[in-house]
Amino acid sequence: MMEWSSYLDQEQSRFIDELMEFVRIPSVSAKPENRGDVHRAAEWVVFRLKAAGVEKAEVMPTRGHPVVYGEWLDAGPGRPTVLIYGHFDVQPAEPLDLWDSPPFEPALRDGKLWGRGVSDDKGGMLTPILAVEAMLKTANTLPVNVKFLFEGEEEVGSASLRAFIAENAARLKADMAFSADGLQWAPDQPQIMQAMKGTLAFEIKVTGPKADQHSGLHGGGIANPAIALAQILATMKSPDGLVTIEGFYDDVVPLTEEMRSAIALLPYDEQDYLDATGAPSTHGEPGYSVLERIGARPMLDVNGLTSGWQGEGAKTVLPASASAKLTCRIVHAQSSEKLLEAIRRHVEAHCPPGVSVEFCTTEREARAFSIPDDHPASTLAGEVLEEVYGKPPYRIWAGGSIPAFSPFVDILGLHAVMLGFSHGDENLHAPNEFFRLDVFRRGQQVYGRLFEKARNWTPSSS
Amino acid sequence: MMEWSSYLDQEQSRFIDELMEFVRIPSVSAKPENRGDVHRAAEWVVFRLKAAGVEKAEVMPTRGHPVVYGEWLDAGPGRPTVLIYGHFDVQPAEPLDLWDSPPFEPALRDGKLWGRGVSDDKGGMLTPILAVEAMLKTANTLPVNVKFLFEGEEEVGSASLRAFIAENAARLKADMAFSADGLQWAPDQPQIMQAMKGTLAFEIKVTGPKADQHSGLHGGGIANPAIALAQILATMKSPDGLVTIEGFYDDVVPLTEEMRSAIALLPYDEQDYLDATGAPSTHGEPGYSVLERIGARPMLDVNGLTSGWQGEGAKTVLPASASAKLTCRIVHAQSSEKLLEAIRRHVEAHCPPGVSVEFCTTEREARAFSIPDDHPASTLAGEVLEEVYGKPPYRIWAGGSIPAFSPFVDILGLHAVMLGFSHGDENLHAPNEFFRLDVFRRGQQVYGRLFEKARNWTPSSS
Repeated sequence: MMEWSSYLDQEQSRFIDELMEFVRIPSVSAKPENRGDVHRAAEWVVFRLKAAGVEKAEVMPTRGHPVVYGEWLDAGPGRPTVLIYGHFDVQPAEPLDLWDSPPFEPALRDGKLWGRGVSDDKGGMLTPILAVEAMLKTANTLPVNVKFLFEGEEEVGSASLRAFIAENAARLKADMAFSADGLQWAPDQPQIMQAMKGTLAFEIKVTGPKADQHSGLHGGGIANPAIALAQILATMKSPDGLVTIEGFYDDVVPLTEEMRSAIALLPYDEQDYLDATGAPSTHGEPGYSVLERIGARPMLDVNGLTSGWQGEGAKTVLPASASAKLTCRIVHAQSSEKLLEAIRRHVEAHCPPGVSVEFCTTEREARAFSIPDDHPASTLAGEVLEEVYGKPPYRIWAGGSIPAFSPFVDILGLHAVMLGFSHGDENLHAPNEFFRLDVFRRGQQVYGRLFEKARNWTPSSS
Repeated sequence: MMEWSSYLDQEQSRFIDELMEFVRIPSVSAKPENRGDVHRAAEWVVFRLKAAGVEKAEVMPTRGHPVVYGEWLDAGPGRPTVLIYGHFDVQPAEPLDLWDSPPFEPALRDGKLWGRGVSDDKGGMLTPILAVEAMLKTANTLPVNVKFLFEGEEEVGSASLRAFIAENAARLKADMAFSADGLQWAPDQPQIMQAMKGTLAFEIKVTGPKADQHSGLHGGGIANPAIALAQILATMKSPDGLVTIEGFYDDVVPLTEEMRSAIALLPYDEQDYLDATGAPSTHGEPGYSVLERIGARPMLDVNGLTSGWQGEGAKTVLPASASAKLTCRIVHAQSSEKLLEAIRRHVEAHCPPGVSVEFCTTEREARAFSIPDDHPASTLAGEVLEEVYGKPPYRIWAGGSIPAFSPFVDILGLHAVMLGFSHGDENLHAPNEFFRLDVFRRGQQVYGRLFEKARNWTPSSS
């Protein structure tokens, strides 16, 4: 009988074709015009689960984009159940003109597959499915029961997932949970995620006149909403990178010496980092290293600005309004409700005269998430990574957010361990996203070994 | 023989049809895709001049959009020459969704004609042509020689006009000049323009990483260009409306008591002004009235902001860049070169760390313009306006800019007197631009009387 690992080797080129087929579906959850595509991606995933041997798979509605649920529960008595999470929606591809090949026409170049969503998270969420297929096709069974929960709203904040998990809690019951959406440090260096930041998203809209006005006829008579917006934003962060909203840092737990030491172990080269991002220098809250700031200190970023004339040439308008989209990345123990209220108060208190300001939160919200020290599923994942990579994983505090993880803890009592195979240089959320094909293969192998190693899990170890 | 004034009455409905035909040409000078339309508008004007009896009319190339020149010089010995200016290009129509009827499909409603450019300046520039037609068709002659100079770049700063005037100075020689691009105070109240502000336009572009970055992966590591831009803009103006760029007010001549008294004569109702603009309150440089600020104090406005994600929903990017388009309105005696240098220094000095800033001026530039007290052509226009309206014109210091006027003074030695018939409520440069049809008719009458009154002009009176 063929080994599951050999099956993976043998079928790899088909798997790549299938990943390309998956990437061709523009399942952009943020854009209403792609709603049908997100649904099409869900149907594709169900089809793929069934082809892998996971017969019980279905598209399930939510109040937003649908979820895909699949299960294979025939491992036999005493075997644990593994719940695997991932997402089939992708970020918008704009600005399109910066892509070297079209975002939804995946292209193979340099041992990589290029396209929107290939790394985040279409490649990642396929890896455990392919490991399951390899085991079922070669051994006709799995060492563990497996449940799959794939969502279509990760890139817009997983707004429907909490309700879905609450309504389906009995069905989703498991002994451990892993997320196929996640990063490794480098192609030759694994990592285990200790914590991720939460996300708050909001918009500040400043309104002045009822329509754009001629700046010669009215400039000097009435306030300029674009300048007022700039004045408000400038009060929120100091030029050296400290967030200056009153109360912003109140509930932040100071970094422990142990965390700082673990972070200090991570290789970091300033020039490499600057080359990778193209930024002229690093920049942020004084008193912390770059990795401490990115991973373990709360932040505030403007994601977009819109006002007035943005086309070619000059247009002498006094704009009717100006708006900014912002996100905060918050850390463990910060309350999103309390922070949003502090920010709202700050924005209203700092609005200059002559305009009105509207503060609105968007649906995008994720709580900060951290895995307890010595968590058994995390330890298990660490052992498999060390076997496959030949070296122990780094411990990571990360700046990203996965809103899905909070309801796993709150409702299912499961800390999802991130076991994904993307890398920070793969242009996630940016033009020219790519995924490494050798890492795609290795991810499948990691999941196969994880299933084997989880076979002897006992409830007491959870 | 029919009076020229009766001819105007008789032909009015044809004139309105012709104005509609003119407005249908989307001669947006700011948009490269409308280049052909600007040229088409020029050809339409030549055709219309010839139909009026101005046989010597032609489209003349410049380094930018073309100019239309026309002349009728058969008034006979001793008769003065009147040079008339106007423009056939229009502002962009965006945002299109705020128009009640499509901008380039002119619509008649409520005794007004609605469409982009109908008031600024297509309606205006037709009025002297129609007065000439009425006189030539009824009397077969004119009391004065007339030269027409219509440009296609007024809305993008008249960049080519100075060179055109310099190269054709002999041909453009005249005894007095009037601009058919201009405002009246109200349909029942004429005005004479004493001064207009100059315009400086520039763009501030802040650049950070080489592409948009995932704000979770890089936020806190590198600076956010959108916040940096806001911080720079916030240093340029205080919340109470004072421009805080060092040197900005250095060369501003203080308002004289005579100017302040003339401005104080103008009717102004704060609530009416707020209702008209829709702004929640008036706002601007402390120590001056609204009309003083708009007309006679220099200003700085942001015309547009662009950065990062501007679509629907949230996108957690750290933008690669952020840019702002700005204009300053400057007053007599301020040097644009000196001011631009002061602004550039200020922007560079106030750029926060972690990003780079680029300051670029656009081609849009107009010098401030003011007419000497008791200027004879201005006095002549004031007399005609008083006759037609039955009341003396107000004296106005205006916030708008017409770059064309500087080369008239510098090269031709002519102070162009503004004799246009737009009104500040006609949504110039905004959605739902309109022009009053009764005022259109009255403008034609004013030009006819002006030609009659100018008949006895002698060189000594210039």
